[in-house]
Amino acid sequence: MFTSPDLPAVTVLGLGPMGRELAGAFLGSGLRTTVWNRTPGKGRELAERGATVAGTPEQAVAAGELIVVCVVDYDASDAILRRDEVSRALKGRTVVNLTADTPGRARDTADWAATHGIDYLDGAIMTPAPSIGTPEAVFLHSGPRDLFERHRSVLEVLGGTHTHLGEDTGRAATFDIALLDLFWTAMAGYAHAVAIARAEGVTAGELAPFAQGIGAILPPLFEQFAQDADSGTYSGEINPVTSAASTMAHVVEVSESHGIDAGVMRAVEGMARRVIGLGHGADGFIRVAEVLGRH
Amino acid sequence: MFTSPDLPAVTVLGLGPMGRELAGAFLGSGLRTTVWNRTPGKGRELAERGATVAGTPEQAVAAGELIVVCVVDYDASDAILRRDEVSRALKGRTVVNLTADTPGRARDTADWAATHGIDYLDGAIMTPAPSIGTPEAVFLHSGPRDLFERHRSVLEVLGGTHTHLGEDTGRAATFDIALLDLFWTAMAGYAHAVAIARAEGVTAGELAPFAQGIGAILPPLFEQFAQDADSGTYSGEINPVTSAASTMAHVVEVSESHGIDAGVMRAVEGMARRVIGLGHGADGFIRVAEVLGRH
Repeated sequence: MFTSPDLPAVTVLGLGPMGRELAGAFLGSGLRTTVWNRTPGKGRELAERGATVAGTPEQAVAAGELIVVCVVDYDASDAILRRDEVSRALKGRTVVNLTADTPGRARDTADWAATHGIDYLDGAIMTPAPSIGTPEAVFLHSGPRDLFERHRSVLEVLGGTHTHLGEDTGRAATFDIALLDLFWTAMAGYAHAVAIARAEGVTAGELAPFAQGIGAILPPLFEQFAQDADSGTYSGEINPVTSAASTMAHVVEVSESHGIDAGVMRAVEGMARRVIGLGHGADGFIRVAEVLGRH
Repeated sequence: MFTSPDLPAVTVLGLGPMGRELAGAFLGSGLRTTVWNRTPGKGRELAERGATVAGTPEQAVAAGELIVVCVVDYDASDAILRRDEVSRALKGRTVVNLTADTPGRARDTADWAATHGIDYLDGAIMTPAPSIGTPEAVFLHSGPRDLFERHRSVLEVLGGTHTHLGEDTGRAATFDIALLDLFWTAMAGYAHAVAIARAEGVTAGELAPFAQGIGAILPPLFEQFAQDADSGTYSGEINPVTSAASTMAHVVEVSESHGIDAGVMRAVEGMARRVIGLGHGADGFIRVAEVLGRH
């Protein structure tokens, strides 16, 4: 099998759907690739494509110069990395931890890595597993910039865009958490909208084209509201939060008239009512972001 | 002033930001336009452009063949329309009620209109006031199709797209409520994401381009999830709801570690946990729509 002479040997720890795609992308680019997974058997197809399946994480680490970790969370990541045998094997190597967790966990692991002579980058993958190796993949990285630049060409083998967000190791996780907050809240809104529509005799398929229309108007509003938030202006001229709160109450009413739980919209309306109660009823809804952050 | 000989005289009841735009679009197309608002003074600029400002709603109604109503809700709409003087003046005329409220209120008003010999269409405007008269405007209508077709050319003067959703008068309000549910829930997710980002030292402007990226991946997911919902398949192969629930717990944890209220995401996570508890943990998140609708 052809292996690239210019790129380092890589190791992938964790062979869930995402880890398998990562290892597959490395293999597809001709990199010498070693894989390991806690429960065996997940590496079979990768082995057929030329990957070395290691019996232990320390063996896997010893075979690679760049170690990519992609497991369920940092509890799982710690259970693998923070054993003496593995820590010793990692010394002088670079870990790129693409496991999703909180900014605090990422910073804590960077501290641990520093005390063990391990170079450490944290990262987040913002797109689903099938995007890996395609232009659609979106990777965020944080930690030492020179370390990122040193490994950039290997990371780019994984496809898509790779953005270095800053030296603070927690930044990738911060963006990840904030964007997942947006994503899952929006998906909850969609699922709830479908439930209301169905209760009123409208199919999800009938609603979908209009839901896509709503989806299309969101990105420019995100940009406009970001400017409002950063400048401290919260113009409600077109749509004051008082008007939004009335709309939210209608959604709750229709939802509950069908026996559909409206807990999410009740909490959203609560945010709007809090803004109004604090005297900002004439502002735009994005004032919520400022009020939520008050202490 | 030029007035169109082919189009009927129109009346606009309610001169909030949206009503003023509607009247302005009619005037701009040369229609004889009469306006009325509960509190006076809102019609001054329209009068300068050629509108007749009526002193009472019954006078306003008498001057138009097509009566467009756009007030804050159906309580306000009822307070105007359901007085004897106004009901009598409306007999034989057509009301297009673009006021936002619940499907039930729309159907109830259609029943009332039928007993008073008034032709009645309900509608919803899905885009902000400045979109009126532009190609961006989105209007939804429901009620008798022949009535809609008869007035379509006048309505199209308001710009954008006009979709007749069906004979059930409640359908426009159903789509309106469902789409506003999606819109405001998504905006709440964005505002909350901005609050988390700021607490971690990331500005809204830094987050915005990535938030726009999330916004861009939503529409195709809405289409795919609609197919899942309508077909009763809820594939969680790429992202099972168990995995989504773990992510949601991370969002709650980071949020609350900064003292930021996580009520919305707690409610979203609750929906996911309910799906899991009912034995659908391997399904995709859209299973929520089906579970919410169970009785």
